[in-house]
Amino acid sequence: MAYQLYYWPTIQGRGEFVRLVLEEAAADYVDVARLPAADGGGAPAILRVLRETPGVAPFAPPILRDGALTLAQTANICAYLAENHALVADDRAARVHANQLQLTVTDLVAEVHDTHHPLSTGLYYEDQRAAAVERAKGFREERMPKYLGYFERQLHDDHLLSTFSYVDLSLFQVLRGLEYAFPRAFARVTRETPKLVALGERVAARPRIAAYLASPRRIAFNEQGIFRRYPELDDG
Amino acid sequence: MAYQLYYWPTIQGRGEFVRLVLEEAAADYVDVARLPAADGGGAPAILRVLRETPGVAPFAPPILRDGALTLAQTANICAYLAENHALVADDRAARVHANQLQLTVTDLVAEVHDTHHPLSTGLYYEDQRAAAVERAKGFREERMPKYLGYFERQLHDDHLLSTFSYVDLSLFQVLRGLEYAFPRAFARVTRETPKLVALGERVAARPRIAAYLASPRRIAFNEQGIFRRYPELDDG
Repeated sequence: MAYQLYYWPTIQGRGEFVRLVLEEAAADYVDVARLPAADGGGAPAILRVLRETPGVAPFAPPILRDGALTLAQTANICAYLAENHALVADDRAARVHANQLQLTVTDLVAEVHDTHHPLSTGLYYEDQRAAAVERAKGFREERMPKYLGYFERQLHDDHLLSTFSYVDLSLFQVLRGLEYAFPRAFARVTRETPKLVALGERVAARPRIAAYLASPRRIAFNEQGIFRRYPELDDG
Repeated sequence: MAYQLYYWPTIQGRGEFVRLVLEEAAADYVDVARLPAADGGGAPAILRVLRETPGVAPFAPPILRDGALTLAQTANICAYLAENHALVADDRAARVHANQLQLTVTDLVAEVHDTHHPLSTGLYYEDQRAAAVERAKGFREERMPKYLGYFERQLHDDHLLSTFSYVDLSLFQVLRGLEYAFPRAFARVTRETPKLVALGERVAARPRIAAYLASPRRIAFNEQGIFRRYPELDDG
């Protein structure tokens, strides 16, 4: 039976980390909320799953259904799919280290989100822009170099772990997102992380990922997602 | 061989979620940074592990060493220990759902941290107090009721999953932390979450947890940790 992914239909957002794993696995899946409303799609499909999941319910999308199992939390879904589709090595230490790196990606993504929403997710960006300018400065000057420098040092070979894994896919997505949101800061910081840049290019060239990126299934970055291009938040 | 935990020695912080699992498991462990400096303790012990771990290195503490394996990220360490000590049921769906709930706890904890550091982790609280007051308002009025209401609805029985698990320990810690940091808001919000309050009391009464809480191993909450009591951030 096909996996069912539930995520906001007009943004990459956190769902994109899941989509990349599904695409690299060539898994059979339905991106439910992107179906026409007449076919059960749209945001109401997500709200139904949030409200009506029996047992352990999700707090927020992305949400994956695999038969009778409904699971949530991006890093949790990615690890689950990776185990099913050999996108992580089949030993405990590798799984634990993959999850460790993925949760560090998760922390980085949360910090990116807070560059444009430092005060409240309930306020518009325009109503917290001054605070965003300050938060983004610290992110660009301290946090982004710290995170990317860390991942650069973890690249011993052609990937983060001893084999290609879902963490490489997520890091590719982070690189694309940072480049979109902070083009000037990204160019500056990645001068120091050549192995990371090369990793991103290798992932983009993987046949299934290249086909996905060229397809209409890949939503363009935009200013409703996590990675948003607001020039005032980038290097001056 | 004893586990080695590396975490800041003067705060509960994220390390406390790990300490609670180790204590409930009655595991043999050394809280390395709390040893005297002459015995290899103190913050330098943590910095050494960050710098000198071969293979996949941690980005930040808490860090656990189990023989040759060094792992990091709070939720990852908790899940690892829980599998070793039967603090999560031994089936895949239970592990996936435990991790899902634990990562939702992780998100909540990150939002609590940002109530006192909304602009930058590199600035003192006093230098971002105005932004903190605004962020904390949204946290108390929207996010805290949303998270605690969610966990209340997940409590079908005496615990979050079908058996007692490490997630119950983490939720206990969140409840204690929120009560410390936001006593007035906590009293208001938990009037609507009686099952959650009862869960916290049951966890505190577990013999090993009760013994731990009464011991000098339990560090008191303070204003260097994640849960900080700043009256101006609580309900007026």
